[in-house]
Amino acid sequence: MKLLMTYDYGQEAMTAIKELGYDVLYIKESELEKADVALDDVEVMVCYHPFGSLRLTEMTSLKYILLSSIGIDQLPSEDVIRQKIIVTNNKGGYSKPMGEWIVWSLLSGFKNCDYFFEQSRKHQWKLTTDVLEMTGKTIGFLGTGTIAQEASKRLLGFEVKRIGMNTTGSPNPEFDEVLSTEDKLELAARCDAVVVVLPHTSKTTNFVDKAFLSAMKNDAVLINVSRGAVLDESALLNELNQGKFRSVHLDVFETEPLPPDHPFWSTDRLHITPHNSWISEKRNSRRFDLIYENLKLLSKGEELLNVVDVIRGY
Amino acid sequence: MKLLMTYDYGQEAMTAIKELGYDVLYIKESELEKADVALDDVEVMVCYHPFGSLRLTEMTSLKYILLSSIGIDQLPSEDVIRQKIIVTNNKGGYSKPMGEWIVWSLLSGFKNCDYFFEQSRKHQWKLTTDVLEMTGKTIGFLGTGTIAQEASKRLLGFEVKRIGMNTTGSPNPEFDEVLSTEDKLELAARCDAVVVVLPHTSKTTNFVDKAFLSAMKNDAVLINVSRGAVLDESALLNELNQGKFRSVHLDVFETEPLPPDHPFWSTDRLHITPHNSWISEKRNSRRFDLIYENLKLLSKGEELLNVVDVIRGY
Repeated sequence: MKLLMTYDYGQEAMTAIKELGYDVLYIKESELEKADVALDDVEVMVCYHPFGSLRLTEMTSLKYILLSSIGIDQLPSEDVIRQKIIVTNNKGGYSKPMGEWIVWSLLSGFKNCDYFFEQSRKHQWKLTTDVLEMTGKTIGFLGTGTIAQEASKRLLGFEVKRIGMNTTGSPNPEFDEVLSTEDKLELAARCDAVVVVLPHTSKTTNFVDKAFLSAMKNDAVLINVSRGAVLDESALLNELNQGKFRSVHLDVFETEPLPPDHPFWSTDRLHITPHNSWISEKRNSRRFDLIYENLKLLSKGEELLNVVDVIRGY
Repeated sequence: MKLLMTYDYGQEAMTAIKELGYDVLYIKESELEKADVALDDVEVMVCYHPFGSLRLTEMTSLKYILLSSIGIDQLPSEDVIRQKIIVTNNKGGYSKPMGEWIVWSLLSGFKNCDYFFEQSRKHQWKLTTDVLEMTGKTIGFLGTGTIAQEASKRLLGFEVKRIGMNTTGSPNPEFDEVLSTEDKLELAARCDAVVVVLPHTSKTTNFVDKAFLSAMKNDAVLINVSRGAVLDESALLNELNQGKFRSVHLDVFETEPLPPDHPFWSTDRLHITPHNSWISEKRNSRRFDLIYENLKLLSKGEELLNVVDVIRGY
């Protein structure tokens, strides 16, 4: 089977793939545009976002796309659906570092990270009593997927109440309680911190809207590590400017990179990170492990892991 | 029984104490000096550090000191021992917030907090790949007391190996493994992060010495939340200046406040906080709960909680 790879996972990894019986063609995503190669016989493609440079409609043999990302925003969905291409993603591949990132953000918010950084930068020694403990708090997760689960699992020893939320409110062992999306305002009102880990779909655009933000506690901590479009940014800015929220931690934004003149940059109590929560020194090895596993399953004609429902969006 | 209180826990709390049958005298620590009151009939004293203003030798009836601190450095130990005064401390009273603080510091170190703060301060958007995950790491605790236990318990969901260390290496269920102080260099060499939570005694002065620091991994994270004297500060400064350590988090120092001209202030990868790790919104209620419990036990003639071995030092 002809396989197009757009990322080089190293010699050992590439050899292992060839040994599965694939005819491997390697072209970097940034060089796809000028690479003058016929791709009409490629049946499998391992990639992140080559869709600006190549036309799926010309890849008439393509049956499988193995994405290295979790989100599928970059996918030309209509072509994929029409050509009946099976898509898998890297679901779970970044969940552990992101789970850690969420706990880090929660603690940074409760513990008042800004104060200590500013004091330290100014070489000033002054104790503050504005430090909260997380023990006894209620932490809510919008979404109960692998990222939320890994974060919630890491909160196990913290003596907190962990509430999840998904479409139907179906229980999950990693949460003390799971609410349905219908009860989103109840979740907003009950939690001392809310973590947004929803996939972005047509149904979740602006899921965290003005009503949700208003329903949240005044000194709550808010974290978004999923997609910027899931949260109404101007409603959030408004609430922050009115003094709401103890601490907000956004790793994702509607427009990325966040434009230099965006008002978020100079908003108090708002912590901006450059879509960095998924990074870990194991990101490539873990991503490769999943790709390798799927290529092995495919070569044996077995069912693939992490098949995405492209119509549903995740 | 005559009871001297040097902190006002509020009307409700003070009434509750009186209802136990105590004859309560309240004088703030800062006003003890000028308060012209005979203290020779005081049998119990609830205090933090009144020992600069009053002479224990003149308090001939004093039988019990209920300290609101965990450390007993401030205690005039010789007088206490000679007068056979029973001392209790607030052991466990700050362990939950300090346990959280330790996990926060670990994550701040592994996740590269400095980078994100600097970027954010400069309104710059640039992803960094210098972010580590904690999953799979080995975390060492010098000390296996309540603070170490609360921190270690909070690491339960993180898929890390948790090694404790105490005098004899006696096992503790909150740790995967416990080494004895004899094996301190082994612990130093094996851990990706070391957390110092040793009480300060004559035996632990400079326990974390040049040899220990040298034995640690080059990119390790180091945290001290116990007492500054437990760690050789100049040896640490030396190692940091030579590029050792990924991140160091010190909440305690040999001299506090840390002098404005101390070289630590301008040392890279060193995070200074002003002995703040114990703070939480529950600090007073939790401290009072223990004091009240001990005053109740005392009024019934029962054995007190948290009796300190003043000779041993904790």
